[in-house]
Amino acid sequence: MKFSCTKDELLTSINIVQKAVSTKSTLPVLEGILIQTQKDALKLVATDLDLYIETYMGASIQREGSVVLKSRIFSEIVRMLPEGNVTIEVDQQNVAVIRSAGSEITLIGFDSQDFPVIPKVEEKNPIELPQDLVSNVIRQVTFAVSKDETKPILQGVLMEVTGNEVNFVALDGYRMALRTCTLDKTYEEKSVVIPGKNLNEIGKILTQDDAKVSITMADNHVLFDLGYTRIISRLLEGEFINYKQFIVDDHTTRFKVNCKNMLDSVLRASLVAMDGKYYIARLSIIDDKLIITSNSEMGKAYEELPISKEGNDLDIAFNFRYLLDVLRAVDCEEIYMDCTTNVSPAIITPVDNNSFLYLLLPVRTTSN
Amino acid sequence: MKFSCTKDELLTSINIVQKAVSTKSTLPVLEGILIQTQKDALKLVATDLDLYIETYMGASIQREGSVVLKSRIFSEIVRMLPEGNVTIEVDQQNVAVIRSAGSEITLIGFDSQDFPVIPKVEEKNPIELPQDLVSNVIRQVTFAVSKDETKPILQGVLMEVTGNEVNFVALDGYRMALRTCTLDKTYEEKSVVIPGKNLNEIGKILTQDDAKVSITMADNHVLFDLGYTRIISRLLEGEFINYKQFIVDDHTTRFKVNCKNMLDSVLRASLVAMDGKYYIARLSIIDDKLIITSNSEMGKAYEELPISKEGNDLDIAFNFRYLLDVLRAVDCEEIYMDCTTNVSPAIITPVDNNSFLYLLLPVRTTSN
Repeated sequence: MKFSCTKDELLTSINIVQKAVSTKSTLPVLEGILIQTQKDALKLVATDLDLYIETYMGASIQREGSVVLKSRIFSEIVRMLPEGNVTIEVDQQNVAVIRSAGSEITLIGFDSQDFPVIPKVEEKNPIELPQDLVSNVIRQVTFAVSKDETKPILQGVLMEVTGNEVNFVALDGYRMALRTCTLDKTYEEKSVVIPGKNLNEIGKILTQDDAKVSITMADNHVLFDLGYTRIISRLLEGEFINYKQFIVDDHTTRFKVNCKNMLDSVLRASLVAMDGKYYIARLSIIDDKLIITSNSEMGKAYEELPISKEGNDLDIAFNFRYLLDVLRAVDCEEIYMDCTTNVSPAIITPVDNNSFLYLLLPVRTTSN
Repeated sequence: MKFSCTKDELLTSINIVQKAVSTKSTLPVLEGILIQTQKDALKLVATDLDLYIETYMGASIQREGSVVLKSRIFSEIVRMLPEGNVTIEVDQQNVAVIRSAGSEITLIGFDSQDFPVIPKVEEKNPIELPQDLVSNVIRQVTFAVSKDETKPILQGVLMEVTGNEVNFVALDGYRMALRTCTLDKTYEEKSVVIPGKNLNEIGKILTQDDAKVSITMADNHVLFDLGYTRIISRLLEGEFINYKQFIVDDHTTRFKVNCKNMLDSVLRASLVAMDGKYYIARLSIIDDKLIITSNSEMGKAYEELPISKEGNDLDIAFNFRYLLDVLRAVDCEEIYMDCTTNVSPAIITPVDNNSFLYLLLPVRTTSN
């Protein structure tokens, strides 16, 4: 195999596929990137057998072929190459010579025959969404997946198409994140559960603009097609929990608050509690004020914020981490927080639209 | 004690003194910052009993006093405060209340009586240098201090005033860094040895402009006076090694090379050797070419650079790390490298001036 391309394009492609490279595998070939000539282009592929990423790039192909090169060192070498063109030549023994002005680096590669086969996923009735939107959705939902390895299905995000909407849902028994996007038309009802860690990697590859991504939900895999890049993730098997049962709207207290101000106040209050035994934010909803307090051996915090309230006053407490996760995830100016009692879940929604819903279980405190 | 100041000024002062806060001490008060009113100003002090930093800032003092607050949490709270004014009030029990718009955070402090006394260093015949120059000198020299705890004196940097010059020297048995600065006039001959780790912290406080720093070399301490900030470091006891004996100019090979190009080539060549058993750069000086090679189980590198050579051709090898340290430290376009044999130290100097000299011991390789 022999080809030439620019250093920058090669590095961009490596950075994309590298996100699927296995970091702890007993199969050394999985630590590598498969490089394959494809007519007048180059295909790069990486996988950890759970997530598969392939990307195409322009290159001048002088001799066809393929090789697998160790991802870590190959990417570092390419990053350090001088700007401009690089030529890579691979012999029958999978020895690659990387040449650019004044520099000649020889790397011992693996036989591409040993590289796993990528699952075939036929692009069929894909839903289409802007990449920046999907990237945001992933950030806003995946933090809520369960870390509990005894409930593998909850380590995934439910992706559920109903009519002209798609819902993304994650929950871990303490909180739930639900994000809804409107589709361009009505699609067949279908749902899959995608491993949260794979979605996180996919989120890093999506662009921050409105270029489209086509998502195909197949039987055992989901395919994210970005055009030059195709990402395939294994699905989690089993039935996702019926999350709708948790969304009960019987609130007796509702308040509206500026999201950024509440985040800042909760952050400050969390600092005092950080080293303490408990990591608990106490919220007092009194008239038109939200008072957030916390304490530990180090000291205590008192934060006061203006709110618009409907319904009863209420004292309720949350784990700081869960509250902060939600306040950091929401991208809107104002939110509603709906509560019933200090032992029933609170529901957080945007004031402007119904694009998300967070559900947060309070913690019981000694003063409850 | 009670005072008001701006959040930004307080944070800047905390960031300065924090560099002397003890991270692993059995004395809890050393994890704190001493805050003391001083007429119409505020003094902040921190120390690990090795390095002392005090800084002054403007504040509106409503009641005099002092307190010690835990550095980590205090700095995080101030960082998170809303922009604008903050008021801090401390009661007789050392309980501090930090107030700003809507926020009231209470921190339990320590008695300032328990804070160590700062050594008195009288400012006497200080040498004056621009802060950005001293900051660079520190970066260019301290990396070469010894990590060997059995030779404590070599964990320091020799600062030596002779006539109208000051030399900064560090060495560890494998390499030596010597940096010379010209002074504005002739000073009394004097030398001290400053712990390298303290110098690194001092380097982080110095500004990147030509504001002056006055350096006073006392018997047991050195004082860096930046105006609003005074930094005092303990000195290392004992005689520094006579470093001049190592600078022997009997070179039989000298070449001139572009520093940035050599750094890039050495970096690329180092990647292939990184995971290998040896981390050795082989240099071949042949006619008007410098060839750098390396190899490991993973592959090999060949880098070729144009040079201007005087004297003999030579093959010589260096530890990559030591060679990279020097090439990263020098701030000049072209360097000379002077060699004698492949077992005698190489000397690296700038082409334009004589502000620095690096001495690098080669490594013996099987092919020598």
